[in-house]
Amino acid sequence: MRIILVTGMPGSGKTVVVEVASREFNLPRYSMGDVVREEALRIYGSMSADTLLKTAKILRDTYGLDYIARKTVERINASRSVVVIDGVRSLEEVEAFRRIGETVIIAVHASPKTRFERLRRRGRLGDPVKWEDFVTRDLVELSLGIGNVIALADIVVVNEKPLDEFVKEVKEVLGRVLGVACDKDHC
Amino acid sequence: MRIILVTGMPGSGKTVVVEVASREFNLPRYSMGDVVREEALRIYGSMSADTLLKTAKILRDTYGLDYIARKTVERINASRSVVVIDGVRSLEEVEAFRRIGETVIIAVHASPKTRFERLRRRGRLGDPVKWEDFVTRDLVELSLGIGNVIALADIVVVNEKPLDEFVKEVKEVLGRVLGVACDKDHC
Repeated sequence: MRIILVTGMPGSGKTVVVEVASREFNLPRYSMGDVVREEALRIYGSMSADTLLKTAKILRDTYGLDYIARKTVERINASRSVVVIDGVRSLEEVEAFRRIGETVIIAVHASPKTRFERLRRRGRLGDPVKWEDFVTRDLVELSLGIGNVIALADIVVVNEKPLDEFVKEVKEVLGRVLGVACDKDHC
Repeated sequence: MRIILVTGMPGSGKTVVVEVASREFNLPRYSMGDVVREEALRIYGSMSADTLLKTAKILRDTYGLDYIARKTVERINASRSVVVIDGVRSLEEVEAFRRIGETVIIAVHASPKTRFERLRRRGRLGDPVKWEDFVTRDLVELSLGIGNVIALADIVVVNEKPLDEFVKEVKEVLGRVLGVACDKDHC
């Protein structure tokens, strides 16, 4: 089995990659966040940004740095030859997937300035409004080890362009990974 | 003063960026490694890969995580409006440069596979011959915090292409950073 691990800092656009993989290439997608959300609901009865962060920390501290990955592995449909995982944040998590298949890490990068503007515009619950909050959130992500995963990515896609151009590039990248030829308009 | 901080994993090609900045844009370059090499010579009387690593560790443990950056700052010619720094490895080091000017982080990325092949071909003293040695060296770099600097880079340049194409892209990137217009053949 090939496992495409998608990573990136908040606001980089990693969800776009997962969505293109799902929509255009019919790949099953699994979000690491699903495990955290379900556990947060069980422990705290809520899924606020704060309880999600606390839950992720509890799970890692109690069951190991790769716990969320291992629980995600359990959900993977073993009959599929390629799957996509959303939200890998540490090398320990990468290792958990490497034990069950061949991994390809795709990291999405955008500058802090671009990501901040994007998150501010998005305005989802828990998204930072102030630069200081954005920096704090970045540091929490980095403390989990996401920088190491980005540094060791097999492919980095830079996302500083308009969405339609980024989607086009992601299609080409995924096409290459999957060995599917892409022409100008279709993949 | 503007300070261009160049970072990247071993074999990514970060030295190419520093060389293009120096040669094509006449920017003064400072290598963080110079501080380490001089101290290694003073402490151990040698500059082997092993004593360099030990020296860097001693300097950080004794004088602080930003020590090598602070010593590099002391060398910077304050009369220049833009300088280039080779080899930033942690956010603490970035912070030391941020105290004296406006920083722009340029990270160079290449896949582990590409970097390993490059280092093996290069065969400089201390370069890994075996994949296991390459992975160990990567982990040492990551333990210093270089992944965090890459994740928070202002610009990422992907270096999976032939050298001449990479040099051309680097010229364009530096031209944009410096506000210099580049045409097809010249910057």
